Amino acid sequence: MKVINQHTKHSLRFRNLGIDANQELVVFMPASCHVCKSEGFQALTRLSISFNGFSIIAGLNITSDGLLKEGEISLSKSAIEKLNVQDNDLLEVAHMEPLQSMTNVRAKLYGNTLHQQEYDAIIQDIADEKYSNIFLSSFVAACSGSNMKLEEICYLTTAMIKAGNKLEWGNEIIADKHCVGGLPGNRTTMIVVPIIASLGIMIPKTSSRAITSPAGTADAMEVLTNVNLTLSQMRKVVEKESGCIVWGGAMKLSPADDIIIKVERALDIDSEGQMIASILSKKAAAGATDCVIDIPVGTTAKVRTVENAVSLSLRLKEVAKYIGLNIQTVCSNGEQPVGYGIGPSLEARDVLAVLQNIADAPKDLRQRAVTIATEIVKLVWDMEEQVAEDLVIKKIDNGEAFTKLISICEAQGGFYEPMHAKYSKTVESATAGIISEFDNRKIARVAKLAGAPEAAEAGIDIKVLLNQNIIIGQPLFTIYANSPGELEYAYEYYKHNEKQIIKLSYE
Amino acid sequence: MKVINQHTKHSLRFRNLGIDANQELVVFMPASCHVCKSEGFQALTRLSISFNGFSIIAGLNITSDGLLKEGEISLSKSAIEKLNVQDNDLLEVAHMEPLQSMTNVRAKLYGNTLHQQEYDAIIQDIADEKYSNIFLSSFVAACSGSNMKLEEICYLTTAMIKAGNKLEWGNEIIADKHCVGGLPGNRTTMIVVPIIASLGIMIPKTSSRAITSPAGTADAMEVLTNVNLTLSQMRKVVEKESGCIVWGGAMKLSPADDIIIKVERALDIDSEGQMIASILSKKAAAGATDCVIDIPVGTTAKVRTVENAVSLSLRLKEVAKYIGLNIQTVCSNGEQPVGYGIGPSLEARDVLAVLQNIADAPKDLRQRAVTIATEIVKLVWDMEEQVAEDLVIKKIDNGEAFTKLISICEAQGGFYEPMHAKYSKTVESATAGIISEFDNRKIARVAKLAGAPEAAEAGIDIKVLLNQNIIIGQPLFTIYANSPGELEYAYEYYKHNEKQIIKLSYE
Repeated sequence: MKVINQHTKHSLRFRNLGIDANQELVVFMPASCHVCKSEGFQALTRLSISFNGFSIIAGLNITSDGLLKEGEISLSKSAIEKLNVQDNDLLEVAHMEPLQSMTNVRAKLYGNTLHQQEYDAIIQDIADEKYSNIFLSSFVAACSGSNMKLEEICYLTTAMIKAGNKLEWGNEIIADKHCVGGLPGNRTTMIVVPIIASLGIMIPKTSSRAITSPAGTADAMEVLTNVNLTLSQMRKVVEKESGCIVWGGAMKLSPADDIIIKVERALDIDSEGQMIASILSKKAAAGATDCVIDIPVGTTAKVRTVENAVSLSLRLKEVAKYIGLNIQTVCSNGEQPVGYGIGPSLEARDVLAVLQNIADAPKDLRQRAVTIATEIVKLVWDMEEQVAEDLVIKKIDNGEAFTKLISICEAQGGFYEPMHAKYSKTVESATAGIISEFDNRKIARVAKLAGAPEAAEAGIDIKVLLNQNIIIGQPLFTIYANSPGELEYAYEYYKHNEKQIIKLSYE
Repeated sequence: MKVINQHTKHSLRFRNLGIDANQELVVFMPASCHVCKSEGFQALTRLSISFNGFSIIAGLNITSDGLLKEGEISLSKSAIEKLNVQDNDLLEVAHMEPLQSMTNVRAKLYGNTLHQQEYDAIIQDIADEKYSNIFLSSFVAACSGSNMKLEEICYLTTAMIKAGNKLEWGNEIIADKHCVGGLPGNRTTMIVVPIIASLGIMIPKTSSRAITSPAGTADAMEVLTNVNLTLSQMRKVVEKESGCIVWGGAMKLSPADDIIIKVERALDIDSEGQMIASILSKKAAAGATDCVIDIPVGTTAKVRTVENAVSLSLRLKEVAKYIGLNIQTVCSNGEQPVGYGIGPSLEARDVLAVLQNIADAPKDLRQRAVTIATEIVKLVWDMEEQVAEDLVIKKIDNGEAFTKLISICEAQGGFYEPMHAKYSKTVESATAGIISEFDNRKIARVAKLAGAPEAAEAGIDIKVLLNQNIIIGQPLFTIYANSPGELEYAYEYYKHNEKQIIKLSYE
């Protein structure tokens, strides 16, 4: 598996077949290729592909039936972008050097404890996209369950920070918040950031887009303003307003984590160690000094029991201490969606309602935002609970937090009112009873089938709460969509899963 | 991840793009596809693809740039073969049902011991090709190192046997042999089978082709005769001659193992549990009752230390007992290649030389074959060592084993003499000294670069042995190839690695 010598590099002519294999770097060569034959390349072999002084490692797929001619080579979309090649460019192909860091993964699988430099090597190779999905999966498996000691989570977190960019703000205190996730409508960031910024505490917030949910904070914020800022644009906003809410995906804060997370999702493996490293490495890389972490607990949330939340909370604090980050955790109720709306525009509308003190603004969303903002103030200013909470509530009540959000939006590129979806349908209860359970995951799925988050206006608006008495024909929620097909589609899914989505108990 | 209901199946028109992703089943859909959008399919999502009453599970790659048009769909080669589709066929696409058996893999990763029915579920899903490479990798990882208890190896072996075909021979005693591998030129099967068959013991041998080595037994046997027999053809040969040597790849003896082994190789993980299950499930599925297993031990062989060989041997015996297979193990010296030739034709020539009692036939190859055949006779007939060995040696010395090999070849389709390669080059020692080490892996690589096993006549012929005194200019080995390019290529690799391939120590 070594590069033999200079003679074993082979030039092949690039032709774009237009194949997107997502994050995976794939090289396509025809079965007839003399290089494949003489080098003994097989499908799945990892090859080094070089062009113009740059090189990547890609997994080989062998094509037949004339898709590529002898002497031609193609690459998947992300590989093309990395190498910046065009049709007819000559690429050099060679066996890849053996991946030394896989030795560490194997050692971990064999039960050894890894040290800092071993995690560094693995994470750097992952960030450099040298790991195939097979390698990534074995690493995720090696770190799953309770296989990682506390010290190893510290090393992994440190390695992830080292392998990415780190933002510097030139300020002693940088506040941040994070939510462990899994709770639809939990859009507190857009309320917390203007409160904290209006108190004069710097909070340069980078948020993510939805991956499997109907809306991420970046999606909801994008309803109101531009979130695709460069780092220097972000700096200007923060200097002016003390805070911002931008999309963090392009900042490469923890590139290895972005890659690992996709494989974890495919495997449906939630490793506590990986989760802690993922959260804390991104906060540290974003330059945070003080961070509050919201852990919603519920049977269909990411963290399912209070015991798990307590264990996660303790470990988060220990690892945070190791990397020099000051954190506080908040275990919150995750048994039902937050606010009314689920979907970017509907959630943005709820946020504006809370900040504008509108009479029927969602009380739970307000309360959750107040709790988190209060914890941030306590953390940063070492203040008593009641004093901190009074400060926070005042910023909502006197409209300063609202004004701050509008100012932040203006600084990011202008403020726009949320738009309405073209079509809607209100779902009424077919039976009577008391609401005993919401299935957060299936509720999210209805909103996604309606078109969220791609269609920002799509989603659902929930009109009922846990433990509420429901009569026959009472409106439960409204579905919003931009096409009649999507509306129907979401409704059909609901009708098929009606009894699990909102469970009623009878007296 | 569930099939929502009947309405969510979508028909798309098939177009063959001619992409071979090896064993992996891949589905290609254009980024513009309405089904991708409305179902929220992402790259790497596992989809259920149905046609004509059959369905497969495939991983999604998303294509762009007009390779596929909206409404079109394509599949990788193996997926096309499984579904037997042609251009313009309409395929149905849906989210796959969640893979229940992955719950067991996760449980294993979390440190639980799995039971028979849990291994059954995993292995059946793997045999049904429902596991993506990511899933396979996590299973291999979960079973690696010392993670499997002895009882679990028994369950895994049993599960692998259940998931494949089992050959029945209607005979009380069915002898077999196996070599753990990693030793070039160790072509004992072609000597052992005719000896055992000529003693009247039934030995219906299924062998493999080379995967990473310069020759498998099936490749070397194919030099002399046809090895691609159907099961009924194989039966006729065995009924007539008591033995055969055919390619076992098409018999589906342990289909899950064939899939797992490719991922193990990519990960370079040798799990003792998987290795034992792999070996024994194939022997049991081939209908063996009594089997001798050769374990070559050497620094560049598969098993590197005597301790590992002893541990492997003990576990093999315990698992064999559990599944009702009578075995004996032979730990042999694996410090240098066996015989002279490496490559299908050269190895077949060595085999014929031994069976024809030619004066300079390789003594080590003869001795190893005698040892294994003797162990088979002892195992089957419960006989004393010396008596058994005398019987075995007599069959070589009196030419009966040679006659039997020719008869087996005739029954399999005719006997052909090995051919010679067109080009050759003899490598001479540049220094003097005593041979202290052979690197089996690098020696195998020289033979492969010369063209073996695709070019049956290609390979190398070694002229020296461990501990032999070498003078400057003494011929070390001859490279054989069918093209000047391959000859040169193999020679260059040798020159670049000269000192590791055959290590000389100086007095």
